[in-house]
Amino acid sequence: MVGEEEVRKAAFEAGIKLGAVFHQFVGMPVSFENAKMIERTMESCLRLQPYVVNSYVNIDRVKLAEKLSKFNYTSLSGDMLFVRVTVRVGDTEVVGRLKWNEELKYPLMELED
Amino acid sequence: MVGEEEVRKAAFEAGIKLGAVFHQFVGMPVSFENAKMIERTMESCLRLQPYVVNSYVNIDRVKLAEKLSKFNYTSLSGDMLFVRVTVRVGDTEVVGRLKWNEELKYPLMELED
Amino acid sequence: MVGEEEVRKAAFEAGIKLGAVFHQFVGMPVSFENAKMIERTMESCLRLQPYVVNSYVNIDRVKLAEKLSKFNYTSLSGDMLFVRVTVRVGDTEVVGRLKWNEELKYPLMELED
Amino acid sequence: MVGEEEVRKAAFEAGIKLGAVFHQFVGMPVSFENAKMIERTMESCLRLQPYVVNSYVNIDRVKLAEKLSKFNYTSLSGDMLFVRVTVRVGDTEVVGRLKWNEELKYPLMELED
Repeated sequence: MVGEEEVRKAAFEAGIKLGAVFHQFVGMPVSFENAKMIERTMESCLRLQPYVVNSYVNIDRVKLAEKLSKFNYTSLSGDMLFVRVTVRVGDTEVVGRLKWNEELKYPLMELED
Repeated sequence: MVGEEEVRKAAFEAGIKLGAVFHQFVGMPVSFENAKMIERTMESCLRLQPYVVNSYVNIDRVKLAEKLSKFNYTSLSGDMLFVRVTVRVGDTEVVGRLKWNEELKYPLMELED
Repeated sequence: MVGEEEVRKAAFEAGIKLGAVFHQFVGMPVSFENAKMIERTMESCLRLQPYVVNSYVNIDRVKLAEKLSKFNYTSLSGDMLFVRVTVRVGDTEVVGRLKWNEELKYPLMELED
Repeated sequence: MVGEEEVRKAAFEAGIKLGAVFHQFVGMPVSFENAKMIERTMESCLRLQPYVVNSYVNIDRVKLAEKLSKFNYTSLSGDMLFVRVTVRVGDTEVVGRLKWNEELKYPLMELED
């Protein structure tokens, strides 16, 4: 695979991982008690997948606090999530990122430079 | 099965259906364009399941409008959902309902009388 | 709430939890590496929810081994899952169980006696 | 955006859509009765998302028939799914495809030429 093909494939794979982790985990019951465990589980699910060399997930505790129901937990939603995944194809590494964008009201996924 | 067993089983089955439909569909891309289709798909998924004799789903269009991203859609969330499912076991029918409760900040599931 | 109402509500709540956990977690990337973590995360998600006093999840490692892809993981599916959840409403406790039934080809959910 | 950036972004976006649709819909109750409706709903969810210009989903009816439970439906799984999504960024179009690969036992996602 030549350079540009590798880059394209790496970008494609990074996209797959972000789309997957978002739609698999949104809706999950989350509280201050298990937020750390869910972060680690999300990271492990990312790392199982082909080409992934690193993953990081953070659930925003301020947003979590705001959204807690009277039962002291809520459903995981896009506005609490920060995800970064590093994908390597051949010699090419790309980093994909999911970050809530308040202006767009959207869990924006982007390639980092 | 005697009366009380039937009631218990019907209540159990109604619970299964509401828990299932919520966690399967939350996160789904939804807009004014496909909200009706998603409602009908949710109803069809409910009706496939054992003991279900009726189902009704409504996505709150006012909430939907409020939550639309700049890309003109959003992720389906509990605060937009109203679901009613009727379950029959033997001669017993029970109706389960999912309705957002603003005070509890929670998608409350209850048995109707 | 009198006795029968409690039983009915407990059965309903047990159903909700099993339907929820199944449809939230099915599809999750799972391998021998993170199966234990996913089990614990599923249990924590069950325990966050109202009325739950105990939860247990097991992912069948033999089924997991059979289903592993060439990439050494697979998607969590109903035929690997065993779940037990204990729900208490007032003085009433009920136990709900999800267990794959090979004859029915179905992740059967039932109330234990 | 210059050519290569567009290609990379288009590949990334195609990946997002395939990862998303897979993990959102896997687990959904499906039968011969609602398979067509689910296909159309999946296509509509794909088309709502930024940069998507076309989408096609097919649920393999032979696999579906094999997997039907005694209750005449099953949970949607990766081995039944074929998805094609066309993404356009600027002047660049790429096509992403999800297709079950029996040898890998894996729902392989790839960029078409």
